[in-house]
Amino acid sequence: MKAIFLEKPGGPLIIKEVEIPVPSKGEVLVKIAAAPVNPSDIARIKNAHSEYDLDTFIPGIEGSGTVIKAGRGILPGLWLGKRVACSSGHGSGGTWAEYMVTPAANCFPLSQNVSDEQGSMSLVNPLTAIAFFDIAKREGHKAVINNAAASALGRMVELLGKRKNIPVINIVRKKEQADTLRSLGSRYILISSDPLFTKQLESLSAELKATILFDSVCGRQFSDLISVLPYGSKVVVYGNLSGEEHPVFDPRVLLGKNITIEGFYLANQAKENGMIRNIMNLRKVSKLMQTGMTIKINRTFPLSEGQQAVDTYLENMSAGKVLLVP
Amino acid sequence: MKAIFLEKPGGPLIIKEVEIPVPSKGEVLVKIAAAPVNPSDIARIKNAHSEYDLDTFIPGIEGSGTVIKAGRGILPGLWLGKRVACSSGHGSGGTWAEYMVTPAANCFPLSQNVSDEQGSMSLVNPLTAIAFFDIAKREGHKAVINNAAASALGRMVELLGKRKNIPVINIVRKKEQADTLRSLGSRYILISSDPLFTKQLESLSAELKATILFDSVCGRQFSDLISVLPYGSKVVVYGNLSGEEHPVFDPRVLLGKNITIEGFYLANQAKENGMIRNIMNLRKVSKLMQTGMTIKINRTFPLSEGQQAVDTYLENMSAGKVLLVP
Repeated sequence: MKAIFLEKPGGPLIIKEVEIPVPSKGEVLVKIAAAPVNPSDIARIKNAHSEYDLDTFIPGIEGSGTVIKAGRGILPGLWLGKRVACSSGHGSGGTWAEYMVTPAANCFPLSQNVSDEQGSMSLVNPLTAIAFFDIAKREGHKAVINNAAASALGRMVELLGKRKNIPVINIVRKKEQADTLRSLGSRYILISSDPLFTKQLESLSAELKATILFDSVCGRQFSDLISVLPYGSKVVVYGNLSGEEHPVFDPRVLLGKNITIEGFYLANQAKENGMIRNIMNLRKVSKLMQTGMTIKINRTFPLSEGQQAVDTYLENMSAGKVLLVP
Repeated sequence: MKAIFLEKPGGPLIIKEVEIPVPSKGEVLVKIAAAPVNPSDIARIKNAHSEYDLDTFIPGIEGSGTVIKAGRGILPGLWLGKRVACSSGHGSGGTWAEYMVTPAANCFPLSQNVSDEQGSMSLVNPLTAIAFFDIAKREGHKAVINNAAASALGRMVELLGKRKNIPVINIVRKKEQADTLRSLGSRYILISSDPLFTKQLESLSAELKATILFDSVCGRQFSDLISVLPYGSKVVVYGNLSGEEHPVFDPRVLLGKNITIEGFYLANQAKENGMIRNIMNLRKVSKLMQTGMTIKINRTFPLSEGQQAVDTYLENMSAGKVLLVP
């Protein structure tokens, strides 16, 4: 089969011909239909060499496809022949390939009204948004702050907030992004380039008791952001869209306002949850997908243009998702 | 009475003559015998103007003295005439004065074998160290990492760890500090200027399962420190000895290793605890003091030399504590 590999640590991506893998007990073989480029894929590509052997590492955290072979066990048998959304296992084989072996517990069947393209993006973002509201509920936050709200995940957070009746303060960089969100029905939108932004965030978060910030930017504004949060707030850091810039914080703010900063990474979360919790969450996602949520797609690429796909995505993340289609 | 005030936001400290305050219900009037300069006093002086009216703000978080007047209530009456350790209330009047009014619940009696000087330092550091081990126990950390271990508080953490049979990894800056700690019986000591320091911390924290770091430095090494902690570690930030430098972190480390960074400030903690929990903690401190723990004193100053006292303390914090003696 054709699959994407890393030529060297960090890239570039190249295509190679390898054996089709064989599913063991509890696993299935999926013929991949589509697979998105996620920010977490990019982070994983950067660090793959420290965790995996580059000779066997295939990127791609999630995708969609058809189960064409089942290992022993009940669940693999159930999925055989079904069209599924799937995520890669903890091994090195990902979705950026013609075929992937993964635990059957990492798949769920797609209903007819969900396309291969939309279905391929139905795990990482929805599971992350669900996990965010689990944290918010468990810790009693009354409202949430959603940085990079124009991203696919940001929109999912807004949507889930609406369904759960939890106010979401959406932060975007540009006025056009604010206009888009407003036209989609968002109520609270702040533009981070506005000179009054931190003042606005301070008063709105105080008013709504928004004591949890989900931040995938981690940029130059980080220190300012946390300095205006209400007392006792939590910051959940789940990405680093700003790239190599490293966020700074003022220890006196952390002390004086009793702020907590916490890392969130879906794959770690999944390991900690255990299988039952993960399957329950997949059911929630499956329900969410059936309500016709769609994510904007910018372009699709064949596997042979993996590097171009990543470059296109990095050039303009808010233009929509980039998909690999074997 | 004579008391120390701030001439302008941030200082300098000046002495003024004001009325002796009168205790209300639940409060006592303490004739101050001695009061230390703590790092938290310095932070409070820097930020006092945003929280207090500088015309009435007197610095000084803790001290010792004799209760010479009691407001209504059972506890004030109990303390009348007793020599006590005391902390300032949430109002603006502190211990850097000849007299202070404070809630009786902020005092506990000193036994005869504890001097005024040692007694004056018996609240902030012991209560902080007790709170640290409460956090460690509640969250199941098997061992702790103690940055700035040569400070008065750092030594208290080491001591309490020994009593509670919880291994403490002590981090100091200089070899001489390591020698001192070793001579006092510390087992695990790392020197942060050693080129192998981060490697040593990585392997020792993994071996001992030291998954909580107490950091009052927040300096240039912050990012390196957290990058070598075990998966799932917590960093409790309780000071900023490195001064104006702001710590930086790598979001990918926070995500990948599921790290949490949390601010700790004793005064906030005390408010959250409520009175009963605070009184229980004061009892623990009182027991701790009776076992003959002593803290090194560098110099004492009269109230009229408040600014010199602070300057002397800032010049060399590990030389020992600086006390104000009215």
